Amino acid sequence: MTTHTRDVEVGIVGAGPAGLMLSYLLHLQGVEAVVLEKHSRHHVEQRVRAGVCGQPTVDLLRDIGLGARLELEGLPHHGFSLRFDRRDHRVPLTELTGKRITVYGQQEIAKDLIRAHAEKNLPIEFEVSDVALHDLDTERPCVTYVDATGNAVRLRCAAVAGCDGFDGVSRHSLPSGVLTVYEHEFPYAWLGVLAHTPPSHGELIYAAHERGFALHSMRSPELTRLYLQIDLGDRLEHWPDERVWEELQRRLDTVDGFRLREGPLLDKSITSMFCFVAEPMCHGRLFLAGDAAHIVPPTGPKGMNLAVADVRRLAYALHRLLRRCDPEPARTYSESCLRRVWCAQQFSCQMTAMLHRDPDADDFARRLALAQLRHTVSSRPAAASFAEDYVGLPFE
Amino acid sequence: MTTHTRDVEVGIVGAGPAGLMLSYLLHLQGVEAVVLEKHSRHHVEQRVRAGVCGQPTVDLLRDIGLGARLELEGLPHHGFSLRFDRRDHRVPLTELTGKRITVYGQQEIAKDLIRAHAEKNLPIEFEVSDVALHDLDTERPCVTYVDATGNAVRLRCAAVAGCDGFDGVSRHSLPSGVLTVYEHEFPYAWLGVLAHTPPSHGELIYAAHERGFALHSMRSPELTRLYLQIDLGDRLEHWPDERVWEELQRRLDTVDGFRLREGPLLDKSITSMFCFVAEPMCHGRLFLAGDAAHIVPPTGPKGMNLAVADVRRLAYALHRLLRRCDPEPARTYSESCLRRVWCAQQFSCQMTAMLHRDPDADDFARRLALAQLRHTVSSRPAAASFAEDYVGLPFE
Repeated sequence: MTTHTRDVEVGIVGAGPAGLMLSYLLHLQGVEAVVLEKHSRHHVEQRVRAGVCGQPTVDLLRDIGLGARLELEGLPHHGFSLRFDRRDHRVPLTELTGKRITVYGQQEIAKDLIRAHAEKNLPIEFEVSDVALHDLDTERPCVTYVDATGNAVRLRCAAVAGCDGFDGVSRHSLPSGVLTVYEHEFPYAWLGVLAHTPPSHGELIYAAHERGFALHSMRSPELTRLYLQIDLGDRLEHWPDERVWEELQRRLDTVDGFRLREGPLLDKSITSMFCFVAEPMCHGRLFLAGDAAHIVPPTGPKGMNLAVADVRRLAYALHRLLRRCDPEPARTYSESCLRRVWCAQQFSCQMTAMLHRDPDADDFARRLALAQLRHTVSSRPAAASFAEDYVGLPFE
Repeated sequence: MTTHTRDVEVGIVGAGPAGLMLSYLLHLQGVEAVVLEKHSRHHVEQRVRAGVCGQPTVDLLRDIGLGARLELEGLPHHGFSLRFDRRDHRVPLTELTGKRITVYGQQEIAKDLIRAHAEKNLPIEFEVSDVALHDLDTERPCVTYVDATGNAVRLRCAAVAGCDGFDGVSRHSLPSGVLTVYEHEFPYAWLGVLAHTPPSHGELIYAAHERGFALHSMRSPELTRLYLQIDLGDRLEHWPDERVWEELQRRLDTVDGFRLREGPLLDKSITSMFCFVAEPMCHGRLFLAGDAAHIVPPTGPKGMNLAVADVRRLAYALHRLLRRCDPEPARTYSESCLRRVWCAQQFSCQMTAMLHRDPDADDFARRLALAQLRHTVSSRPAAASFAEDYVGLPFE
């Protein structure tokens, strides 16, 4: 088999929101990149994962000319509710911060970015296999892979961006001992379902219930997204549709005037409440971004928004490095990203702990969590701080 | 031995800030009370404990005409520092909240209240013994005791206030099964010293150091109060003066321009980081207030300020109950106090966890605590919320 050699400034592994956004931001600064993705375009465009864009993410999409469909189809939310003590306690995001969140799935952002790439003839290679990274310690790293037609390719780059998620090849390509890894798993998980029914409420509802946490969210005016806290190690086969609805009703139908709408379940999956940070986020000419470097629990909508923050900074750093011979932003890339990462990690963990029923917690810890919930909605400074963290800190 | 019988509307057990303040507030509303205290007046007036008054406590003292000496001798502070990352990060309380704290020891408040009692001939019985509570379930409870001259006394009341601290007789007089108790102990303690030397800095400094927490505080322009996190179970004899100063320097002398002033140690003691809440805070005609009902870790200056909040509410409730035949404020006394108590407990626990080195925590938890510290000083909404909780929420 012949190996084709291609040269490009930046090789990007992974066509999730991080990789696609990075590629597009680099293009806007005149830096050439190739995106490699093991899945098909269809898969990437249909993959339902994160669904809430913070204000900084929305602003960035608009600023780079990709905000039109989000503006039309995204659902702007000016608040959400914390449901406990048999009442809804609304957190008025916009009133408190002047900002909002927008419900717009990551697959929609992927579609917008893929179309923009197509229009500008920017290369994304889908369905590649056998991706491997080489010579990361040098100024000429390369990525080898087999393309969709079966050709072996050697991509010679000046830098490689690992945007291939937690299980991707990028982080695992680093020599052992380079990374320090921090991790934690909460002693419970989420069962998530996608229901073909209009949302039962106009906004998100985070419910802290003695039986466990539940979340009412949505993906569109016709699609409701619902989550239930379940035991760690519990399995999908224990959750037939009837049981899912019964438990959702128990935890969500606790306030007057609310009635949970049911509908056919289109999807059912389990998400772990796993936390992970790898430091540093770069080594030699490999730069990690998004889930490849960090995972936050999904309670605060931070995962995709952190990935966007990473690549915004990375695009700038790579432009300075490759086009301006200025290595400083690349040198401080990891440290700068990690400040935001740990801040989001801390927020997500605190929000998780405050809302879930921890099977290992004693009564004192449970009362503290309830006190924190009550304080968050009754003190205006506390609500303002919570709201500011929730909508997303401004990019620096 | 003859038993003398006295009648009074409210019998108050304990002449700490809670009992003395309650007695004085009741007097201002025309309700008669007797305060019983097992220690001498000298002991109460010299006992160095809490030293930081929140704004609501200062306001209340001024409103009842007892703020003159606090105004003259108290040290108003408009901020304090969180010392970590080898820098001071000031929390500008007044700029953020419009409020301040005042360093003024609880023994000074006790002196002011005792003098006010003497001037108005309000009864405080010091050095009583054998205090016992009776008939708490009835509308005519009574308190028996032996007074300083050896006379047995039976004090017949309409209500009894238990302001006698965590180890006092009041809470222990309740029938078993009445109280639900929540408790927690952090896996470390504080070694506190009082040094005869001017403070090394104009404001409080809370230092988070890898060797453990340290606190620089003061009681007057000549007296410095310093604390060190030590191991749980560690003992005073392991801490000769030289070791105390050496360790304080290691943890506090970490920023340019700061030099810890040394001086003779006047006092050395160990404080546990114990949390406790008993619910409800009343039973029949016994009402608990202050440390008799709840203990918070000393990191946030909440203990005495919570006691003052309790008795302010209790004075109102007893006046309504005994003079206006309105039982409602007494009925809701416990519930109303407990909202503030849990809020302060949560704040104090969070501040404790954020600043101390937890020997049982893993690296992930340590990084989260550091992230929270950094966020508290770098996000203005977070700093404002922290400051608001620190200076004390307004009385309702």
